[in-house]
Amino acid sequence: MEEEMRIEDERWMELALSLAESARGQTSPNPLVGAVVVKDGQLKGSGVHLKAGAPHAEVYALEMAGEEARGSTLYVTLEPCNHYGRTPPCTEKTIRSGVKRVVIGSTDPDSRVSGEGIRRLQDAGLSVTVGVLGDRCDRLNEAYFHHRRTGFPFVTLKTAVTLDGKTAAPSGDSRWVTGPAAREEVHRLRHHHDAVLVGIGTVLQDRPRLTVRLPGGGSHPLRVVLDSTLRLPPDTPVTDVREAPTWVFCTDRADREKERGLADRGVRVVRTGPGPRVNLRQVFRRLGEEGIISVLAESGGELNASLLREGWVDKMMVFIAPKILGGKESPTAVEGNAPGRMADALSLKEVSIRSFGEDFCLTGYPKKAEKGG
Amino acid sequence: MEEEMRIEDERWMELALSLAESARGQTSPNPLVGAVVVKDGQLKGSGVHLKAGAPHAEVYALEMAGEEARGSTLYVTLEPCNHYGRTPPCTEKTIRSGVKRVVIGSTDPDSRVSGEGIRRLQDAGLSVTVGVLGDRCDRLNEAYFHHRRTGFPFVTLKTAVTLDGKTAAPSGDSRWVTGPAAREEVHRLRHHHDAVLVGIGTVLQDRPRLTVRLPGGGSHPLRVVLDSTLRLPPDTPVTDVREAPTWVFCTDRADREKERGLADRGVRVVRTGPGPRVNLRQVFRRLGEEGIISVLAESGGELNASLLREGWVDKMMVFIAPKILGGKESPTAVEGNAPGRMADALSLKEVSIRSFGEDFCLTGYPKKAEKGG
Repeated sequence: MEEEMRIEDERWMELALSLAESARGQTSPNPLVGAVVVKDGQLKGSGVHLKAGAPHAEVYALEMAGEEARGSTLYVTLEPCNHYGRTPPCTEKTIRSGVKRVVIGSTDPDSRVSGEGIRRLQDAGLSVTVGVLGDRCDRLNEAYFHHRRTGFPFVTLKTAVTLDGKTAAPSGDSRWVTGPAAREEVHRLRHHHDAVLVGIGTVLQDRPRLTVRLPGGGSHPLRVVLDSTLRLPPDTPVTDVREAPTWVFCTDRADREKERGLADRGVRVVRTGPGPRVNLRQVFRRLGEEGIISVLAESGGELNASLLREGWVDKMMVFIAPKILGGKESPTAVEGNAPGRMADALSLKEVSIRSFGEDFCLTGYPKKAEKGG
Repeated sequence: MEEEMRIEDERWMELALSLAESARGQTSPNPLVGAVVVKDGQLKGSGVHLKAGAPHAEVYALEMAGEEARGSTLYVTLEPCNHYGRTPPCTEKTIRSGVKRVVIGSTDPDSRVSGEGIRRLQDAGLSVTVGVLGDRCDRLNEAYFHHRRTGFPFVTLKTAVTLDGKTAAPSGDSRWVTGPAAREEVHRLRHHHDAVLVGIGTVLQDRPRLTVRLPGGGSHPLRVVLDSTLRLPPDTPVTDVREAPTWVFCTDRADREKERGLADRGVRVVRTGPGPRVNLRQVFRRLGEEGIISVLAESGGELNASLLREGWVDKMMVFIAPKILGGKESPTAVEGNAPGRMADALSLKEVSIRSFGEDFCLTGYPKKAEKGG
């Protein structure tokens, strides 16, 4: 009986997760949330949080259920809020609707309020079950939770390599490592992130636009360029801010005249101290403060090495093309200085692999110690 | 009805394939062959070719069936032989046994005799179906077929890389890139191959034994070292031929004294011309002439680049460990000179991926033009 209840709970939570996931890329800085209302084994309402300022998922689901909410079970991927923000607390709405039982995926990531929503529901006599598909609900909002806990954005390092680890020919030519399906996925990743991050080397070499070009549209991320001495040319695509905003992080070594030139074009320039290199901690602190909760790093081997060494990478996505480039001089995905022994390589955990056309994408999370910088 | 017959045929051929595959590593220079005898939907006999000089698979299967072979169907992964070799022709045995129908996977790879077995069976009034699970039967003996067609061994290039394509730290330390499951698979691969091939650099750096260490035993491959000037030290594990034979291919630049020293230890030394590098065409021609039909190259980045550039690689197996080493100076799986453009990278076809513990192994076949050298 308990086992059957668990299967039933997971089935409905699965639907709530799918709803939440479908809004990825449009809710930031809010979390992804899905909710369904079920009574007598039948779906009575469904809802999803669509964007900041819009009603919470529970509100849509409960309003859709109407009178049917009385005596029902509410499934929601994230603990309902218990405070007055832009909207009244979802806990009160749930109680007033006559819901009998609430099944929750993740608890609130903010330790100051975590469990308050649950307690309010229990105090009102509702039965509450927590942690159904909990790991997946946590993963759903990994960026949001990370930002809420640390103040820093969640950084996903994405790279594309040949089987022998090369990202480009020695000439710098890199068009293309992967096929159309993998490249479309990268545009989807940009749509899913608040910001994309590159170094000036990538901008100079590839002249990328770093925008989202998907058949069905999508929202452009903030473009962030690390450029210690402001070598950014005024005529490269990322300085055209009509399409998407661009911020450049530099050091005090950067020329004031160049800074003004970029500012005149609408590019925001931020100094991060004496240098010689851009201070990564300041970059991520500033981005976090500005409400950027997720960053997709599409950087080259040297910047990738710095990001990894200083512990800024929260997730890695490596697209692997089934081809061999070769070349002792060909750039690879991670350069910098290697540890002295293979045993000191950085391992990934929770590794999964997916295929995109002929290519593969391996995803994992660095086993990290502490953030440096 | 035809569709049902096809499903039935594939089901029995599947069993014959499993039998054949189970003898991998023990039949060289003969092919892998499995056979089953079926009557009225029931298995009456099964056989497999165990080793050179032993009876063919059909013989075992037909003898096991005995009188039941009369009116039966014989499934065999490879066209039965029609000539007197070490054993009488399997076609005659099949006809005499009263078999009514023969279902064949692959035809004989030798164009001079291909189809002769089939014709003999048809002339004797048997019904013959060819090509059932044909692609898989061909793959089963890809090395044998390649050797029969070209005279050269089939070369599988195996390497193990981190996600960023590194094979070792800049110090040369490479223990270990992959975990125990992948490393055990490499020992199984050695058991499945007639020879393993490395360059002198790998011997000097890693001091490998290149033998098979599997829980259940296995047969050691011939160890082949490419060493243009005979730098091979007399006290490195591969010069101990009590465990397994070792051949060293060098150039005319190699010292005669050193050659004698190695020969005295039982190492076979073969000169391949003036140099400066070992002539790969001569190496593979010689190995092919000596009945080596499969070679597992466990070489480093420079030799890998030469093998690939000259078109000697027939199959690639790349073990990928979910870890990042980094380092601009870390050696990668394929070095040498890269083409000028990413579009000129060497693509693999028929790519598949398997997991071994935490690691993955990507297998594919280079899309090649002509053999060079």
